[in-house]
Amino acid sequence: MIKTTICDLFNIEYPVFQGGMAWLGTAELASAVSEGGGLGFIGAGNAPAEWVRQQIQNTRARTSRPFGVNVMLLSPYAKEVIQVVLEERVPVVATGAGNPGSWVPLFKERGIKVIPVVASVALARRLEKAGVDALVVEGIESGGHVGEITTLALVPQVVDSVGLPIVAAGGIGDGRGMAAALALGAQGVQLGTRFICCAECVAHPHFKEKILNARDRATVVTGHTTGHPVRALENKMTRQFAAMEKAGALVSELEAFGTGKLRLGVIEGDLENGSLMAGQVAGLIKDIKPARDIIREIVAEAEAVIRHLHVLGLSGVRA
Amino acid sequence: MIKTTICDLFNIEYPVFQGGMAWLGTAELASAVSEGGGLGFIGAGNAPAEWVRQQIQNTRARTSRPFGVNVMLLSPYAKEVIQVVLEERVPVVATGAGNPGSWVPLFKERGIKVIPVVASVALARRLEKAGVDALVVEGIESGGHVGEITTLALVPQVVDSVGLPIVAAGGIGDGRGMAAALALGAQGVQLGTRFICCAECVAHPHFKEKILNARDRATVVTGHTTGHPVRALENKMTRQFAAMEKAGALVSELEAFGTGKLRLGVIEGDLENGSLMAGQVAGLIKDIKPARDIIREIVAEAEAVIRHLHVLGLSGVRA
Repeated sequence: MIKTTICDLFNIEYPVFQGGMAWLGTAELASAVSEGGGLGFIGAGNAPAEWVRQQIQNTRARTSRPFGVNVMLLSPYAKEVIQVVLEERVPVVATGAGNPGSWVPLFKERGIKVIPVVASVALARRLEKAGVDALVVEGIESGGHVGEITTLALVPQVVDSVGLPIVAAGGIGDGRGMAAALALGAQGVQLGTRFICCAECVAHPHFKEKILNARDRATVVTGHTTGHPVRALENKMTRQFAAMEKAGALVSELEAFGTGKLRLGVIEGDLENGSLMAGQVAGLIKDIKPARDIIREIVAEAEAVIRHLHVLGLSGVRA
Repeated sequence: MIKTTICDLFNIEYPVFQGGMAWLGTAELASAVSEGGGLGFIGAGNAPAEWVRQQIQNTRARTSRPFGVNVMLLSPYAKEVIQVVLEERVPVVATGAGNPGSWVPLFKERGIKVIPVVASVALARRLEKAGVDALVVEGIESGGHVGEITTLALVPQVVDSVGLPIVAAGGIGDGRGMAAALALGAQGVQLGTRFICCAECVAHPHFKEKILNARDRATVVTGHTTGHPVRALENKMTRQFAAMEKAGALVSELEAFGTGKLRLGVIEGDLENGSLMAGQVAGLIKDIKPARDIIREIVAEAEAVIRHLHVLGLSGVRA
């Protein structure tokens, strides 16, 4: 069975993280992933701190295993959410959309493991110096906020630049992607879109179904003009957003238009007017099953892929 | 040693292709790659048919091994270049920037293997029906013309959709990338940027040096407004092009501005005013060496990575 330093560091069975998605990373999903042997994450997104505290407590009621909170640093409540994470002594904190450097000592003092999400070598280097425990290295194929570099190009460049354990994210939906990430030098993987299509995820059934029916070119990136580009399934909402950008809309107008749209899409199931954040692996996902099964199947498939490649190298058997 | 169906199909030692880059895919590079056990490609780009014929003859003078011609279907000379490929009975033809479906029977009649470059599942499916021999599946991290989907997300989706052998391209610069591509289900890899930094490549030494000094975020994509986006190292030329696009320049103005810029950059070595097409793996490339050594080192590294992953799975040794 595949074991890596990520398993030891975070005290988990399989080196499989669930991305801390806003609205979808609730206690239901985070606890199911952690109970399944991976590492579940509550996604704080733009939620108020007390919502996050409730999710932490609900997660603890459902599992005694480690879990994390993903703090979105652009949130108006980021400071208060971090305070809750500190008070609750959540086992792991991930951070997105920024540099959590100044908070690192506070987390470490309380024994909280810190694993920021990074999209560039420069930020990876800075955060290693700041004392974080590991890094999620995320490529542009992921859903939600995206950087500029793909997972395949970015992971080995970060591996060569820092000494930290690395979890690869973006573009990974099955065991082939997991084996590829390990080949690139990562010690674990993080999956978001795959866990939306998980029995325990609170996403609206229509949104889950839309992912099951998605093809390779189903997603688009909008928001370059805001400085915070986002990947989502293309629909009326993304087309309107892109048209506003093209017409030169102000960032404030775009933000006002975007407000409430993620919840409308992923929770209320409005597939045309809501934002349906998802990654380019949407086209790979064909079924909804419990988190535990997703995790075990991905790890088993990754192991089978590695065995197959090994035989290929040994014997000259043709792939 | 890693052998795949790609080796048998194209009668080569290693499943490693050289991308057929305009101006750089000359007889010097193509023959060096083929002599090194991979599959070298002459890049027809926008060159006249007689230049392509000369390169074919020069390549034959340098190697008796198989090689190919990459036909850029947007070229004004595409038809004439295809005629030369047919007359010269080049062993392999690759095609880029379009659908070569109608030409496939003509190539097949003459025993020419056909391996188009595709960036989507839909085109992969159409070309399988058209009777091509294999596909190069290229992600958005590649240099030059780019699609919308990353290699990590696209390759497994194409693998699941067609029965053809697949060569992965985009984002692959070393043996880790090759092992990852094989894990995704590809039977070979194609490298462009890595072969620019090859002793035999006619690229200007200053351009090679700029790749050696590039970081992860060194490239940008311009040309979305023309319908043919291109990835290149960021410089004065890409900034000017992007500014023209932002200001609403016509496609004809953009094309006029772009004319001659690739040669100016990659052959004449004008690093500011020329176009320096390169992929996101530029940041991974640290040395210039003969094509033969590049190929052997990549294959040896891929094999070492696979052995390491196998041990990891067998024994619980930590990565």
